[in-house]
Amino acid sequence: RFGYFGMDKLEVLKLLLCNVSGCLTDGQLYMSAGGEDMVSVNVRDEIGIRMLQREGVEVILICSSGSPVSQALADRLSQRTGCELKQDVGLSQVEALMKPRKLAWKEVAYMGNDEEDVDCLTLAGLSGVPRDAPVVALNATKYACHSGAGQGAVREFAEHILLLLRKAKAKMEQDRIRRDMF
Amino acid sequence: RFGYFGMDKLEVLKLLLCNVSGCLTDGQLYMSAGGEDMVSVNVRDEIGIRMLQREGVEVILICSSGSPVSQALADRLSQRTGCELKQDVGLSQVEALMKPRKLAWKEVAYMGNDEEDVDCLTLAGLSGVPRDAPVVALNATKYACHSGAGQGAVREFAEHILLLLRKAKAKMEQDRIRRDMF
Amino acid sequence: RFGYFGMDKLEVLKLLLCNVSGCLTDGQLYMSAGGEDMVSVNVRDEIGIRMLQREGVEVILICSSGSPVSQALADRLSQRTGCELKQDVGLSQVEALMKPRKLAWKEVAYMGNDEEDVDCLTLAGLSGVPRDAPVVALNATKYACHSGAGQGAVREFAEHILLLLRKAKAKMEQDRIRRDMF
Amino acid sequence: RFGYFGMDKLEVLKLLLCNVSGCLTDGQLYMSAGGEDMVSVNVRDEIGIRMLQREGVEVILICSSGSPVSQALADRLSQRTGCELKQDVGLSQVEALMKPRKLAWKEVAYMGNDEEDVDCLTLAGLSGVPRDAPVVALNATKYACHSGAGQGAVREFAEHILLLLRKAKAKMEQDRIRRDMF
Repeated sequence: RFGYFGMDKLEVLKLLLCNVSGCLTDGQLYMSAGGEDMVSVNVRDEIGIRMLQREGVEVILICSSGSPVSQALADRLSQRTGCELKQDVGLSQVEALMKPRKLAWKEVAYMGNDEEDVDCLTLAGLSGVPRDAPVVALNATKYACHSGAGQGAVREFAEHILLLLRKAKAKMEQDRIRRDMF
Repeated sequence: RFGYFGMDKLEVLKLLLCNVSGCLTDGQLYMSAGGEDMVSVNVRDEIGIRMLQREGVEVILICSSGSPVSQALADRLSQRTGCELKQDVGLSQVEALMKPRKLAWKEVAYMGNDEEDVDCLTLAGLSGVPRDAPVVALNATKYACHSGAGQGAVREFAEHILLLLRKAKAKMEQDRIRRDMF
Repeated sequence: RFGYFGMDKLEVLKLLLCNVSGCLTDGQLYMSAGGEDMVSVNVRDEIGIRMLQREGVEVILICSSGSPVSQALADRLSQRTGCELKQDVGLSQVEALMKPRKLAWKEVAYMGNDEEDVDCLTLAGLSGVPRDAPVVALNATKYACHSGAGQGAVREFAEHILLLLRKAKAKMEQDRIRRDMF
Repeated sequence: RFGYFGMDKLEVLKLLLCNVSGCLTDGQLYMSAGGEDMVSVNVRDEIGIRMLQREGVEVILICSSGSPVSQALADRLSQRTGCELKQDVGLSQVEALMKPRKLAWKEVAYMGNDEEDVDCLTLAGLSGVPRDAPVVALNATKYACHSGAGQGAVREFAEHILLLLRKAKAKMEQDRIRRDMF
């Protein structure tokens, strides 16, 4: 049946991998002379992450190898959002995360914003980038947010995922009813 | 008489409840490795709050249960704005704030910006959200600001309230004059 | 002669008074739990101030009574820009600053951004506000910047002043030549 | 041959000089009372710098004499981006940097954003400024970015350089093929 495959994919979405730099943050790193770095996170995005967690979607924050965040800052981000945070993550590390969870790429959503995310954006069942991402990332993504990085892009992508999940469930329910009627 | 009810409502507006995250601040939480969080507040919004206080409207800042601000930061916000600040506030806590003040919902204005504020936005006599609020909040509010969160939305809502209060007073004055003339 | 008065005014402009909050800064006050406040200043605006100083226009930064900046922060701002910084300044304090300098209002430019600046914006020989200032300030000003607060508004106003000064000088030169010819 | 000169220039581009204030940063200096200054750098711009370095283009960060960054902050910026950072740099210092590298101006790209950069913007083989630069800089530059300072302007200029380098290489390759054919 046409369209079933897409439905199937989202019905079983179990994991969102989200790059911290340029997705959860606006990509700005505030640097002081003393060496104390700061990043800013939007409350709206945090609520988006919690919306996914409430619906049973696991969210893992990743820091790609190119943009190291200090361990202390990573711990704080992880604690605030209630997500695991993995550092120095590339394609192979992502697949290492999927393996123990017995997940296929079609069950994984990926949010990134640059060249280093292109492989994962292409492979993931669903993928998103903020509006202001470089062309290379916009070309690879399945969904381009209307919101910019750090201005609610993660929240928008979370709502997009939840909408598709709800649509898939509604259709499956309908299919079951139809099947029962014959 | 048509229009009287609306006039009556605003004539007696005595309290503004304003969510800190995403209304008074732009929703950004600046996080450092050391654990020292920062939020930013716009001088223009602080002036808006003082304008309301000068006209006898009490302003209470609230932090909803989803977005905890550290106690030290809450104290500082409270001190700067001259407003009480209540933490972990939901619908029932708001009603607990109204009770000792003997206020009905029609005497309360509410400013919020997300799902958690929907109940209060709907119940309050007057309600406002910043321009960049999620759809769920925009649908529930009575007034949608032209200014974004942290860019003068609180100031704009304060001026909107003061304008309505002045209009209501002027109309009441006129009604009294008319009544006296017959 | 028509136009002479305006020319005269600018020819002798000797002082720029610039409100810090919402003109030199974007109005944001970054607050941490520890009590260490931060404000941000744009390099472009600092260059604008130095452009005026080089042309012999004194620049004094003022903090109006409504928006206190900590003394330490005021000292740092003063040091970076090479300007005097006066705290808790209202109309009478501004006139107290003009007196020892033997300046009339027409020799003073004023940059502000809110209600508290309205008197000075009206009285000053030349006045400016950032694009995003409240209506009350926009109505009182002589020049409305295209740039927003903290995004180069001070620089733009400085360039506007220098342009007018140069025009006035050129015209005066021309007038002298004409006078000599008859 | 027409067009060869331009091609030649870019084929040999070996150095990018990039002003920190207003190019790599958004020009904002975050000041605290305690004297700890902060600047913010965008991850996207850092990636742009690394893209150039990978293609063999040296990148040197410069702080012009007008906008001193504390030595500690300069060290941190230098370390994060893997670039040398030179302080108090004007035209003569830039030429002193080019001399030991035996570079002519046509082999140098320059990114700046204000009056102090005009000489270098004019002399460099390729030059760029962020979208929001003052008119004086926009008039002197060869390429005006669509991105603003601190919002990916350095990244955009880096991609522009790489595109031109690739074009020049492709054309040179083609020329060699044609020459071999006759």
